[in-house]
Amino acid sequence: MNYNHLIQKVYTKIEAVAPQGEVASYIPELSKINPNKFGVHISTTQNFNFGLGDYQEKFSIQSVSKVISLCLAYKILGETIWKRVDVEPSGTKFNSLLQLEADNGIPRNPFINAGALVICDMLISNLENPEEDLLAFIANLSDHKVEFSLKIAASEKLTGYRNVALCNFIKSLGNIDNEPEVVLDFYFKLCSLEASCEELSQLFLFLANQGKTLHSNLEILTKSQTKRVNAIMQTCGFYDESGEFSFRVGIPGKSGVGGGIMAIHPGKYSIVTWSPKLNEKGNSYKGMRFLEDFTTLTEQSIF
Amino acid sequence: MNYNHLIQKVYTKIEAVAPQGEVASYIPELSKINPNKFGVHISTTQNFNFGLGDYQEKFSIQSVSKVISLCLAYKILGETIWKRVDVEPSGTKFNSLLQLEADNGIPRNPFINAGALVICDMLISNLENPEEDLLAFIANLSDHKVEFSLKIAASEKLTGYRNVALCNFIKSLGNIDNEPEVVLDFYFKLCSLEASCEELSQLFLFLANQGKTLHSNLEILTKSQTKRVNAIMQTCGFYDESGEFSFRVGIPGKSGVGGGIMAIHPGKYSIVTWSPKLNEKGNSYKGMRFLEDFTTLTEQSIF
Amino acid sequence: MNYNHLIQKVYTKIEAVAPQGEVASYIPELSKINPNKFGVHISTTQNFNFGLGDYQEKFSIQSVSKVISLCLAYKILGETIWKRVDVEPSGTKFNSLLQLEADNGIPRNPFINAGALVICDMLISNLENPEEDLLAFIANLSDHKVEFSLKIAASEKLTGYRNVALCNFIKSLGNIDNEPEVVLDFYFKLCSLEASCEELSQLFLFLANQGKTLHSNLEILTKSQTKRVNAIMQTCGFYDESGEFSFRVGIPGKSGVGGGIMAIHPGKYSIVTWSPKLNEKGNSYKGMRFLEDFTTLTEQSIF
Amino acid sequence: MNYNHLIQKVYTKIEAVAPQGEVASYIPELSKINPNKFGVHISTTQNFNFGLGDYQEKFSIQSVSKVISLCLAYKILGETIWKRVDVEPSGTKFNSLLQLEADNGIPRNPFINAGALVICDMLISNLENPEEDLLAFIANLSDHKVEFSLKIAASEKLTGYRNVALCNFIKSLGNIDNEPEVVLDFYFKLCSLEASCEELSQLFLFLANQGKTLHSNLEILTKSQTKRVNAIMQTCGFYDESGEFSFRVGIPGKSGVGGGIMAIHPGKYSIVTWSPKLNEKGNSYKGMRFLEDFTTLTEQSIF
Repeated sequence: MNYNHLIQKVYTKIEAVAPQGEVASYIPELSKINPNKFGVHISTTQNFNFGLGDYQEKFSIQSVSKVISLCLAYKILGETIWKRVDVEPSGTKFNSLLQLEADNGIPRNPFINAGALVICDMLISNLENPEEDLLAFIANLSDHKVEFSLKIAASEKLTGYRNVALCNFIKSLGNIDNEPEVVLDFYFKLCSLEASCEELSQLFLFLANQGKTLHSNLEILTKSQTKRVNAIMQTCGFYDESGEFSFRVGIPGKSGVGGGIMAIHPGKYSIVTWSPKLNEKGNSYKGMRFLEDFTTLTEQSIF
Repeated sequence: MNYNHLIQKVYTKIEAVAPQGEVASYIPELSKINPNKFGVHISTTQNFNFGLGDYQEKFSIQSVSKVISLCLAYKILGETIWKRVDVEPSGTKFNSLLQLEADNGIPRNPFINAGALVICDMLISNLENPEEDLLAFIANLSDHKVEFSLKIAASEKLTGYRNVALCNFIKSLGNIDNEPEVVLDFYFKLCSLEASCEELSQLFLFLANQGKTLHSNLEILTKSQTKRVNAIMQTCGFYDESGEFSFRVGIPGKSGVGGGIMAIHPGKYSIVTWSPKLNEKGNSYKGMRFLEDFTTLTEQSIF
Repeated sequence: MNYNHLIQKVYTKIEAVAPQGEVASYIPELSKINPNKFGVHISTTQNFNFGLGDYQEKFSIQSVSKVISLCLAYKILGETIWKRVDVEPSGTKFNSLLQLEADNGIPRNPFINAGALVICDMLISNLENPEEDLLAFIANLSDHKVEFSLKIAASEKLTGYRNVALCNFIKSLGNIDNEPEVVLDFYFKLCSLEASCEELSQLFLFLANQGKTLHSNLEILTKSQTKRVNAIMQTCGFYDESGEFSFRVGIPGKSGVGGGIMAIHPGKYSIVTWSPKLNEKGNSYKGMRFLEDFTTLTEQSIF
Repeated sequence: MNYNHLIQKVYTKIEAVAPQGEVASYIPELSKINPNKFGVHISTTQNFNFGLGDYQEKFSIQSVSKVISLCLAYKILGETIWKRVDVEPSGTKFNSLLQLEADNGIPRNPFINAGALVICDMLISNLENPEEDLLAFIANLSDHKVEFSLKIAASEKLTGYRNVALCNFIKSLGNIDNEPEVVLDFYFKLCSLEASCEELSQLFLFLANQGKTLHSNLEILTKSQTKRVNAIMQTCGFYDESGEFSFRVGIPGKSGVGGGIMAIHPGKYSIVTWSPKLNEKGNSYKGMRFLEDFTTLTEQSIF
């Protein structure tokens, strides 16, 4: 399939669309971003790479990083991680705190904040130097170097009362082992990772390649684990718009409030879009539009 | 792929497993079923058919029928149906009534009871003879004749206080047009449909075949609509165990409290299992086990 | 205390206030009422009676009747009624259905619709002719004759989907013995009772008189039962504005969507106000204002 | 009324009862208490004082202190406090977090932890030396000296993840002005206050005396404010057992997990009981029993 032609076509169309929604403003650092940024990059299992727009500019990947932390925990701890975090979609926002209480602090899935906090707690308990080991894990995934933004992490820490509440609530329910402050520090670092569309699509290509990196043929996850991570992205990757993304785009993916979306067509490609304005569900408006049109045009989806 | 060999292998293994859980007992008629029944049937887009065990015995398909009503409504009304029913997973059970109230009576998806009731209401408003037209629609899908069980429908009506509550609640919120009693009558009929594994797998084969029947090459749904129905089954087909099914089995499907599960591998096959004992989430224990082992063995999943 | 002077004073002040809010419109019959009606009547345990404004005009007492059904059930069944209905305030509106499910169909108190439906179910099971026996019970309370409005009851039945939902939901949870249709018929009749401020204040005077009628010295409830009914009115009489009424007015009471409020000062008096416009919590705007000013001026409250 | 005789009679009866339930164990310090402690003390507006059992032993008053913080905030800030905290009962436990979110961080009442945290936040913003000023306020209420237990406060701080969660959640919703850590420190101090039954009943006597202390005739609250504090205790003083207390005991009161209960009969007396074993709702088992029997025997209640 001639992906560069198709991407060009859809890019041109979506670029012309006035983005709706607002840039995330809950932390000052994120609100400073130029709302007109728009980049796309695809990496295929056939080693084809193609990008357009601001695809080489680093941005705050935010919750897209929750896929990385999940993969690292899954790699080192295996199926035991599912004793402490479930694989079900979270449903409506009404659900979150009620659900945690009813389920003894077991979050619905590793991609909501509650679940990512529990995954962070696991990593802290099982890694010698959690921050360095996380960066080393990422370094293996591609040739790119990805770093934390200390500015973003500090900004999140200053204003992250909601996450402090969540982490302490789960601690009170018995599903956080370390002190909440330690878990939150690591979590804010994780969210602060910065990468470009190009870097991200190459970094996540192993999820389209049965768990192996393309550049080094390193097994990051087993085939079965890879399938399962993709399955969770499909059902839980877009908060309470996961069904909508599955319905419209038809492949697994994960979004972040920095405006990034990473999506995987198993066996075929990984693709990353970036446009900071978010719809009312907190997902990139242009990114969603781009991916819907792109999968429609390719007539490829997992369904 | 040598499906008959694989099915034989998995069937032998799972047949030996003592089924856990309980037969649905909320209506007397369902509780009378022999709990040891176990059948499997596959139908492929290559026109291969293979069944084992009680695959030719008719059973109460219950909620599997919600896929039929959705497809019929989608066919005749197109994308407008999504104004009255959403495509998001429902989350935990705590959610259902709270969510309906918060969202002005718009159910989360067409596969929970609330959503199926709204779909029934649409069909009643748009079909001349809803019951006959539904059966005629089904008759087109395969060579098989499928009928309502008046006994089951009557039994549901006598004890279906929960569904009466749900339908009147949605009516009070403005998302049911017809009188609740009329909607409920049609809904109970829909749930009472009876078919065998063989019949069901052939009947639903169009969902694996880009929307067209294999035996008559009739377009039931467009390619895009077919993709979307499969996507909704993936995220919403198993109540609050949808994520688990996606995680373990990796293909879209729909279960019913009669013990049936229908699953679709787009482009490849439809498969139906039947075993009446249900796990605590209300899905067939052996059916889930069979499909997990089967997709693991084939190493085929959409992810 | 010179009650007629005080009532005159407060009446003059509140009469001049433009009533805020809306007349109940969920049933056509109620919405036809003249929104400017305003009446007040007090009956004391010293046999003093005084009314102003439209105090002799009958109106639909609606939920004020839930105190009557509770008293009748309490009289004939004693403390056993509390096995099927609790005595706790209901909290926010979010609570109602969630709570019923969590508590196996035991409503929070007898003054929310759920609780009144369960009380109606008890009366049906324990009275030979529920409707006649209810009217006979009321006839004993004072010299006045109170009747159902068949028009109002029919109107409620036609549009009462929410109550149909509630009753069937409780039935499905096992806390309704009779068929929901029978319970609802009786409930709609109960709500349709019509009386004037004068009639109501005399009818409920026994609650201020340690359980005995003043005109006939008949024991309706024991002292202890009377105390308890007043205590429940104090905590649960005004939906999720019960705390506000307790805070501002400081005596037990019960409101209805017909615009009536009945309040009791134990040992002293019963007082009834009527003004159809309701605040956003569903309680009479002018009635609340009147009673707040009245108890402030008398410097009498139970606290 | 011969209160000492009645108290003696009920005390003898309840002392013989084996206390059911468990001593609060969520903080180590509280769990060390001797579960058989039992004390009672009454102080009347006629200056009669009488105690039995362990009525002179200091215990951790815990949430009973929420009445003190409310009175102090009410005194210095007046009716404006109700903009930030409501006066409604909280309903079931399901409610708390859902409700906060729905109501923009406005807690249901000042006696649930959420509400007490908001009151603490007000005090910190409006007092020069919050801790000293609080102790000075208490010192005015009676002749007794009441102190914080630094041990208890430290113990709460170490394990109070739930309160940390709550405070940060309200902060994220905008209804806490100061840093959560500062608010929590003050809150934990407040909860750590220690006093005996005798001291507490004399300290709270002003609530039975129209807002004035008996020993010094100092106006702590106005008549109207006093009425209102009593009204809130009536509807909200016992978590989701407030209705039950109102129903059985019939006077306003406030309990603490240290096993203390303080109750007020307006115009007549304040009474305090202490017995550490708590029923499943978190209220002192023997204390509830004692007060029910006592008010039954006196045939005095506000209803």
